[in-house]
Amino acid sequence: MSNENPKVLVLMGSKSDWDIMQHADQTLARFDIPHVCRALSAHRTPAQVIELVSKAEENGAEVIIAAAGGAAHLAGVVAAHTILPVLGVPMNSVLNGLDSLLSTVQMPGGIPVGTLAIGKAGAVNAALLAAAILARKDTDLQQKLRDFRKEQQDTVIENSVLP
Amino acid sequence: MSNENPKVLVLMGSKSDWDIMQHADQTLARFDIPHVCRALSAHRTPAQVIELVSKAEENGAEVIIAAAGGAAHLAGVVAAHTILPVLGVPMNSVLNGLDSLLSTVQMPGGIPVGTLAIGKAGAVNAALLAAAILARKDTDLQQKLRDFRKEQQDTVIENSVLP
Amino acid sequence: MSNENPKVLVLMGSKSDWDIMQHADQTLARFDIPHVCRALSAHRTPAQVIELVSKAEENGAEVIIAAAGGAAHLAGVVAAHTILPVLGVPMNSVLNGLDSLLSTVQMPGGIPVGTLAIGKAGAVNAALLAAAILARKDTDLQQKLRDFRKEQQDTVIENSVLP
Amino acid sequence: MSNENPKVLVLMGSKSDWDIMQHADQTLARFDIPHVCRALSAHRTPAQVIELVSKAEENGAEVIIAAAGGAAHLAGVVAAHTILPVLGVPMNSVLNGLDSLLSTVQMPGGIPVGTLAIGKAGAVNAALLAAAILARKDTDLQQKLRDFRKEQQDTVIENSVLP
Amino acid sequence: MSNENPKVLVLMGSKSDWDIMQHADQTLARFDIPHVCRALSAHRTPAQVIELVSKAEENGAEVIIAAAGGAAHLAGVVAAHTILPVLGVPMNSVLNGLDSLLSTVQMPGGIPVGTLAIGKAGAVNAALLAAAILARKDTDLQQKLRDFRKEQQDTVIENSVLP
Amino acid sequence: MSNENPKVLVLMGSKSDWDIMQHADQTLARFDIPHVCRALSAHRTPAQVIELVSKAEENGAEVIIAAAGGAAHLAGVVAAHTILPVLGVPMNSVLNGLDSLLSTVQMPGGIPVGTLAIGKAGAVNAALLAAAILARKDTDLQQKLRDFRKEQQDTVIENSVLP
Amino acid sequence: MSNENPKVLVLMGSKSDWDIMQHADQTLARFDIPHVCRALSAHRTPAQVIELVSKAEENGAEVIIAAAGGAAHLAGVVAAHTILPVLGVPMNSVLNGLDSLLSTVQMPGGIPVGTLAIGKAGAVNAALLAAAILARKDTDLQQKLRDFRKEQQDTVIENSVLP
Amino acid sequence: MSNENPKVLVLMGSKSDWDIMQHADQTLARFDIPHVCRALSAHRTPAQVIELVSKAEENGAEVIIAAAGGAAHLAGVVAAHTILPVLGVPMNSVLNGLDSLLSTVQMPGGIPVGTLAIGKAGAVNAALLAAAILARKDTDLQQKLRDFRKEQQDTVIENSVLP
Repeated sequence: MSNENPKVLVLMGSKSDWDIMQHADQTLARFDIPHVCRALSAHRTPAQVIELVSKAEENGAEVIIAAAGGAAHLAGVVAAHTILPVLGVPMNSVLNGLDSLLSTVQMPGGIPVGTLAIGKAGAVNAALLAAAILARKDTDLQQKLRDFRKEQQDTVIENSVLP
Repeated sequence: MSNENPKVLVLMGSKSDWDIMQHADQTLARFDIPHVCRALSAHRTPAQVIELVSKAEENGAEVIIAAAGGAAHLAGVVAAHTILPVLGVPMNSVLNGLDSLLSTVQMPGGIPVGTLAIGKAGAVNAALLAAAILARKDTDLQQKLRDFRKEQQDTVIENSVLP
Repeated sequence: MSNENPKVLVLMGSKSDWDIMQHADQTLARFDIPHVCRALSAHRTPAQVIELVSKAEENGAEVIIAAAGGAAHLAGVVAAHTILPVLGVPMNSVLNGLDSLLSTVQMPGGIPVGTLAIGKAGAVNAALLAAAILARKDTDLQQKLRDFRKEQQDTVIENSVLP
Repeated sequence: MSNENPKVLVLMGSKSDWDIMQHADQTLARFDIPHVCRALSAHRTPAQVIELVSKAEENGAEVIIAAAGGAAHLAGVVAAHTILPVLGVPMNSVLNGLDSLLSTVQMPGGIPVGTLAIGKAGAVNAALLAAAILARKDTDLQQKLRDFRKEQQDTVIENSVLP
Repeated sequence: MSNENPKVLVLMGSKSDWDIMQHADQTLARFDIPHVCRALSAHRTPAQVIELVSKAEENGAEVIIAAAGGAAHLAGVVAAHTILPVLGVPMNSVLNGLDSLLSTVQMPGGIPVGTLAIGKAGAVNAALLAAAILARKDTDLQQKLRDFRKEQQDTVIENSVLP
Repeated sequence: MSNENPKVLVLMGSKSDWDIMQHADQTLARFDIPHVCRALSAHRTPAQVIELVSKAEENGAEVIIAAAGGAAHLAGVVAAHTILPVLGVPMNSVLNGLDSLLSTVQMPGGIPVGTLAIGKAGAVNAALLAAAILARKDTDLQQKLRDFRKEQQDTVIENSVLP
Repeated sequence: MSNENPKVLVLMGSKSDWDIMQHADQTLARFDIPHVCRALSAHRTPAQVIELVSKAEENGAEVIIAAAGGAAHLAGVVAAHTILPVLGVPMNSVLNGLDSLLSTVQMPGGIPVGTLAIGKAGAVNAALLAAAILARKDTDLQQKLRDFRKEQQDTVIENSVLP
Repeated sequence: MSNENPKVLVLMGSKSDWDIMQHADQTLARFDIPHVCRALSAHRTPAQVIELVSKAEENGAEVIIAAAGGAAHLAGVVAAHTILPVLGVPMNSVLNGLDSLLSTVQMPGGIPVGTLAIGKAGAVNAALLAAAILARKDTDLQQKLRDFRKEQQDTVIENSVLP
């Protein structure tokens, strides 16, 4: 889902991250949160990243999600240029995402990035954490989050008996 | 700083984490954000953790910071019991905090924890990210964050010439 | 195998863990140990986990096996709510189970989890260690364990000549 | 504490492990569990380890705790020679105990070792897990474990307010 | 190749290691070194391992190669029972052989295991190092090793031009 | 040593890196290579980093050395803004510099950073590699590098006899 | 592409590295940089490596790229025998290239190797860094590098809109 | 101890390794094995290393021990230039010796290095493994090794009772 005044900007370092990051897109859509998804590289297109982040902030975005792999600088670069909450998603890599995770999470004091799990779980959870942040001023969204938790719980319980 | 209707609940798994987590406390205080700090263990006092989290949410808390080391389950346990944004801070450990980091960040899809860096940088940044979240409905706080960034930048520039 | 008064409760964090954890089920069945298997998440269904553990203890369970992957909190959450011996099995993951292992084994002093190997070997061995614990008051089971060891040894010897 | 018919045998690979393993000794003593502590090496004194394990089993020991560092084979060697529950404690090392942990926990299917945390927390928890196992046929010990949990919980609560 | 008075005993912890360890077998055969290959487990068949090692030493074996994976204790157990040179080969595993490597190489002072690379390269090199050891009293074998090096070098040179 | 038209710009992410990076400074000085040292953060002062890099390139700098720790993005940010050769030095950290190393070296195809060792050895070698690059159009510097190698070799040889 | 007076020598430790290292070859060709590719092993053909490096230097080579996996000594051996800039590319391995990376990058002070990322990204970037070094005395090449960056940026931007 | 016709050559990459490698020296001396110790760098003095190795082989050396840290190439370089058995000892490092271990042990098929533990245990064991190799044609030394094992065992037994 995409929107002219997106609340959430979903950035990823490479088009090949879409396979994973579409789960963030779908999760945001599920909560009807206006958002846009863009693939831009912190290293190949730094100026475009900075410009996009600034514009998003001006246009009313409230959270930025940034996903990257390897020497994953995207979330850090974004965080350096905004006071919005920035959420990082480490992509899988030749080192199983350990490099992506450390490059995203080990930020120095002063510029925070809230980092989620490596890969798909992180993509889903970044969207959920964005929703939780937006819900601070949106009681409808709070209710949707509670419903989601309840539904999720019910699904687990229904499938809990084994074998 | 502490307050009867805290906006941020700062939890840590052990009293010995205070040495590091006081930096979260000080950073929140610097932004005049009402908050409380508590040391409770996800393993030794699970009922108390759950109760504290529920009460905090009822009393108007908007963000929860949870710090723990080793098999660091505190942030995950907290996140399982609230729809508030939960921020995790991995404490240093016998394995240099790698176990704490992985136990905090590798949450399954459905229950997000936004994880910050291991140790002091993570403590400071959890507070800053909490401030960024609260600032979404507090334009004064937005300005304070911008001022903080500017100040931080100026300090770096002043000290940039070496040797 | 399942039973109304199970001696062993086999919990796993996700239905997808069954592929591995059926080896615990089969090993317990081999020793005719009454047990039940359930898939419940420490994060998505914490209340159900706690309730199941309490009931199991009341109904005469003597050992609990808990398997989970990633930020694997299940065994720790279970151990926090029972004085029964708790055995943890780390599931494979995007990080080859290293995160699951550290999240399961690095418990703080006070709440023990006896952790087995990552994956299938751990599933089998959790069942065997449960049997060894139950055998402390069941001399038949002791004999069965000795027979199992003998049989296992014989199989190895029979196949020892190479190529 | 030591006793002619110990219920728990506490083995460690080197006398230098005593510094850590005395916490297992103290924890067992706290629960009045008869036990003996011995330092024997799986590599330098394999025959003595095997003999001690056999004798312990004959003399009524019910649990064996084995602590070692580096290529930590002690728990595995012990487990290969007994059907008693064997609990492993990885000692710290030049690699921060990661080698000790993997050498202890990654046992092949067929010979289980229930592994606790690296270092002091593991020493304490091995004793607690031994107590939990013994408590399966000792309701007094069950009560003592419940009291211990309660006491532990109260201590945490008493110290929970910060700063 | 196999022989009644083998100079090298090639042990592996499981029949499934043969896929890799046949490369040690082939390399020894290439140098016409009498040897036997056996699959025996340090954990499931400790007595048989010890007996085989003692007999091999009595019957004139001069080097023992021991390959195992996971908590790879085989080489250490062998080394504890012989003064012959013992060479360890870490097998691949769920953790890519890192556990096997650390369990094999991190032996305490007093009981040495000369460890080779993880997997096939280690299997080949264990055989080559065994040959180098035997060559200390066999000048023919020294010449064969020199020829092997020369041949190996020539093969590389022949194929060195790319693309 | 510093100079108005520096050939090498030595950047570090924090003033606290000077302790290590002074070894780069001293090594460059030893070869009489005009250079400047600056402490600027990729995260706290991104605009200043970019400006400094652009000016350095305009003023004739030929190599840039960038040192940082943790989520070490400095070298990558620099490399994204220049076609000059960029050399990265990972600083030690809470994870022994493993995070700094991976964040510096694992750059995506398209934007290269030549990475040196963690800590002091990396600081010295970044300066030496910068010298090797400058020497491509400075035969005097080539001779100095040959002399340095000779001297280094002589020092090792003089001290080679032990004990 | 190959040339009698190559500016860049591309070495790899094994013919099997060509699959990855052809990306260095193609990248150098794209910039019309005369170069040769050779597969020679630091361990199996050390004399040939040293000779090739010396000849390359004599014949006007200005940069050497060396790629190897496992105990990856090739770049270090090359660097020990030349004052030319040496760039190392760690190949993937049984340990995901972590061994290759550490063996290449952790050089002692005195003999620098500029190390690129593990695998294909490293192969491409070694060629780009070689181009950046050669461009120091070739303004045409500087322009080509700027064009490449521009092109690369444009490709990213064209593909940036998702889904 | 040193000798004109040493049986064992003990090489180390830096004089600073002597602190650890003196334990190899002392262990060899204890068995009256003629040996020499030299500090030479594979990177700073490659020609001297190769010359020393060749001479040692000509003069009757039978085993070479090589110790180095970081990108530890010394043992591999030595092994590339001799058919003698080569034993590697990884020195501690900024990464706790993990880099040294992987750089030493992960040799490609064709050029074996028998690797011992990181640090002091490895230094002692390299000497013991050298003794075990030499003992293949020296029955006196075989007896000395048996006596050493017996003595070592007795020392452990004497100190085995705790506390």
